[in-house]
Amino acid sequence: MDYLDKLVSCLSRLPGVGRRSAERMALKMIREPDKLVLPLISALEDARRNICCCSRCGSITAADSDPCRLCIDPSRDANILCVVEEPGDISIIEKSGGFHGRYHALMGKMSPMKGTGSADLRIRALVERIKPESIDEVLLALSTDVEGDSTASFIEEMLRGVDVKVSRLAFGLPAGSGIAYSDPITLARAIKGRQTV
Amino acid sequence: MDYLDKLVSCLSRLPGVGRRSAERMALKMIREPDKLVLPLISALEDARRNICCCSRCGSITAADSDPCRLCIDPSRDANILCVVEEPGDISIIEKSGGFHGRYHALMGKMSPMKGTGSADLRIRALVERIKPESIDEVLLALSTDVEGDSTASFIEEMLRGVDVKVSRLAFGLPAGSGIAYSDPITLARAIKGRQTV
Repeated sequence: MDYLDKLVSCLSRLPGVGRRSAERMALKMIREPDKLVLPLISALEDARRNICCCSRCGSITAADSDPCRLCIDPSRDANILCVVEEPGDISIIEKSGGFHGRYHALMGKMSPMKGTGSADLRIRALVERIKPESIDEVLLALSTDVEGDSTASFIEEMLRGVDVKVSRLAFGLPAGSGIAYSDPITLARAIKGRQTV
Repeated sequence: MDYLDKLVSCLSRLPGVGRRSAERMALKMIREPDKLVLPLISALEDARRNICCCSRCGSITAADSDPCRLCIDPSRDANILCVVEEPGDISIIEKSGGFHGRYHALMGKMSPMKGTGSADLRIRALVERIKPESIDEVLLALSTDVEGDSTASFIEEMLRGVDVKVSRLAFGLPAGSGIAYSDPITLARAIKGRQTV
């Protein structure tokens, strides 16, 4: 069944979807085409026509406003760049209300396990923004796992010769938590980063 | 971002896809529209136009050959029906070469956890096939878990008044295995179903 195979192989290219789950999705879609396939085709067409990634920062934006509103908003601090892994991270940071600069999404993190190297990420594009945009500070807002840490180290290395301050999000206890609920690594980092009150 | 929300909600209606994984899929698709979105739209259009579920047995078939080739093949035994959960199970049984009758896919199994009741399955359609097709035997090829077992019991109950033999696949040790690798339930079932040699 060629058409089924083609659909399964397209679905299994999506992140987190293996062959078996792609098969389950495809069979379910064939059983309920009006409920599942037609709306999905229309949503895909709409997304393809109307949204894209901002060519400057990588965030999701309307296709007719690239660079995105975050990149051109004159009220934002243009000299500090917050580096995130995924475009989706930008809206999470925006919701926190704690950052008012510009963004740069890497589109992933370095992961030898998944075959993602530095060349697959938007690291060169980051370095190339520093001078033309007169960036003073690069704030790394990456995951606090091994892959996030090695991506951060790599970027620090790349920016060593460039006249820019590089910072990272603070490590410490999450809000609404306590030492009884924290793991040893988080606690050790919170002690190391203790702040005078 | 309405278009993104719409895409995420369409994707999260697929089986096994939660909100978070739908978001990851959507963001990845927006990043790589030519590689991921265009081929998927074309595969979905093709699948929708060219394949469907056989109206009689439920297997996947070309849209212009319903009932499917399995249902109309005169060389197959028309008096025995093998009842499976999913259309995909049919090709697995076909590959085994051990069955030469007709099929009936229920489109799932009874699962209170997932909100699937007997009315959501093609059980009535099964009962309605018995007389017109002169079925002698219904072979239940369902999962050997709690949901498969209760679906089997329900079907047995529904067929009690009907003049048809109901059988199930044998329980026992899988091929290429041994008692050292088998769990206690499998072993107990294999002992209970022991065969004279």
